[in-house]
Amino acid sequence: MPLLVTGSIGIDTVKTPHGCSENCIGGSAIYFTMAASFFSRVRFIGVIGADCPFNIPELFTGKDVDLRGLEIRPTSKTFRWAGTYKETMDDRVTDSIELNVLAERPPVVPRAFVDSRFVFLANAAPREQIQLLSQIQAPVFVAADTMDFWMTDHYLPDLQELLKKIHCLVINADEAKLLAKQLNLVRAAEQILTMGPSIVIIKKGESGSLMCLKDGNKFILPAYPATEVIDPTGAGDSFAGGFMGYLAQARTTDFETLKTAVAYGTVVASFTVADFSLDGLKTITRQDIDQRLEMLREFTSF
Amino acid sequence: MPLLVTGSIGIDTVKTPHGCSENCIGGSAIYFTMAASFFSRVRFIGVIGADCPFNIPELFTGKDVDLRGLEIRPTSKTFRWAGTYKETMDDRVTDSIELNVLAERPPVVPRAFVDSRFVFLANAAPREQIQLLSQIQAPVFVAADTMDFWMTDHYLPDLQELLKKIHCLVINADEAKLLAKQLNLVRAAEQILTMGPSIVIIKKGESGSLMCLKDGNKFILPAYPATEVIDPTGAGDSFAGGFMGYLAQARTTDFETLKTAVAYGTVVASFTVADFSLDGLKTITRQDIDQRLEMLREFTSF
Repeated sequence: MPLLVTGSIGIDTVKTPHGCSENCIGGSAIYFTMAASFFSRVRFIGVIGADCPFNIPELFTGKDVDLRGLEIRPTSKTFRWAGTYKETMDDRVTDSIELNVLAERPPVVPRAFVDSRFVFLANAAPREQIQLLSQIQAPVFVAADTMDFWMTDHYLPDLQELLKKIHCLVINADEAKLLAKQLNLVRAAEQILTMGPSIVIIKKGESGSLMCLKDGNKFILPAYPATEVIDPTGAGDSFAGGFMGYLAQARTTDFETLKTAVAYGTVVASFTVADFSLDGLKTITRQDIDQRLEMLREFTSF
Repeated sequence: MPLLVTGSIGIDTVKTPHGCSENCIGGSAIYFTMAASFFSRVRFIGVIGADCPFNIPELFTGKDVDLRGLEIRPTSKTFRWAGTYKETMDDRVTDSIELNVLAERPPVVPRAFVDSRFVFLANAAPREQIQLLSQIQAPVFVAADTMDFWMTDHYLPDLQELLKKIHCLVINADEAKLLAKQLNLVRAAEQILTMGPSIVIIKKGESGSLMCLKDGNKFILPAYPATEVIDPTGAGDSFAGGFMGYLAQARTTDFETLKTAVAYGTVVASFTVADFSLDGLKTITRQDIDQRLEMLREFTSF
């Protein structure tokens, strides 16, 4: 089923203990799309400025990605982010951020995309996420990501409105605790379920993820036991891409399928973090992903 | 098969965001034994002073615990520990520690215990662990815990000697990183495997555990998704108790059995943290543990 993503396209500069990658391609929509494209056709919505040095159609060559939602604004500048990961890789600091085109009017959903059934709204102002979603005619499964910034007083009502319109929230552990005002993660998930979504997925980085459903079902999965973590940037968006891509391919969202989708998200993210930028995802095939999924199943079953 | 444990008996004072438990019973051998006794007969070795306010035989009433290794030293004082857990419960500070009897000569293994086949050496000076182990005639499976203090220059050679004599090291994540001089946990485990043991189990608290074997097998398991964490004290020793207790009951240590043993350790620890001191373990039955094991299997399978 058609899978739509809206999110950012970024020019990233990332420093980790393993090196530095300057002015490389990044952004939530980019990571998500690359990850999801192993499973499903992806409809891409994102905006860049005239300064963007990347050839995005070329980036997705050989992938089933519909770029009719890619907008290039001739008088705007592309989003830029620079960050540094500490030695333990579980924390990062933002060195600089230039919103540029992300601070302007949001993109419009192309007419060809309004019949999308699976929708992922990557982190953005909740008002913008709501506006984008309102243009989709009959979505069957909508997931969104968000961040702490939108939990401040000014934006919280918008976020609360968004939560009532989506099926699934994908969120980092610290942000889940903040949103739920609850330090215990299971309770935080249960609290967020009362705010609207029927599924909450909490991403815990190298500790894996926790999925809680309104019907009481739960799924917990460790991260893939990676020996090489070079650059964690994009892990969360790749997770979401693998998760949504598999669901769109499966055309269903029953609990068993959701669990497998979380496992696929986990595995795709493990390839992302093995190299800078998109390099960890560029060289792999669906077969590599499937093989690692079976490894993960073996590592976790008893 | 007979399971022997050597470790501490403590008078603990624990503060958590949920309250304070003053002068309650604690210590590694106590938690381990309570946990292991759901699975196997336990031979207990530990020392207290005349000041110990607890009736230890009464504590284990109805459990198959052989206390012939419990030594009461009339002129000594019992080990005491006081600690405080921060709001997030994932970190604690030691407020005070009085080694007392633990700083004296170690206990002697009673003649009746020297034929023990499964042995757990709870955290102690590695030289003392070696000395205790040397009194066991023909152990078939020896596991040990240790801590950062024994990784300092003065004690490290002893710890290295110990590692060559045991089959399994059970260790916290931070301490594994320190011992292996390696921040990646899988690599840390692999590094420790080169030091002697054929199995390394890294405890990651609320993030679960990782088991790596010299033959390349790996097992990763999340913690049980507990909604109520009242007091994490003793979680690690309870984990070890459930793990070793199940192995001793199964009388084998093949990979499938080891995985199930890790799952049992995880589940028993989840009961420990649900209340102060031993209260979380006192009221449960083996049936409760088995039920939660099946829940954990369900939560983690895909």
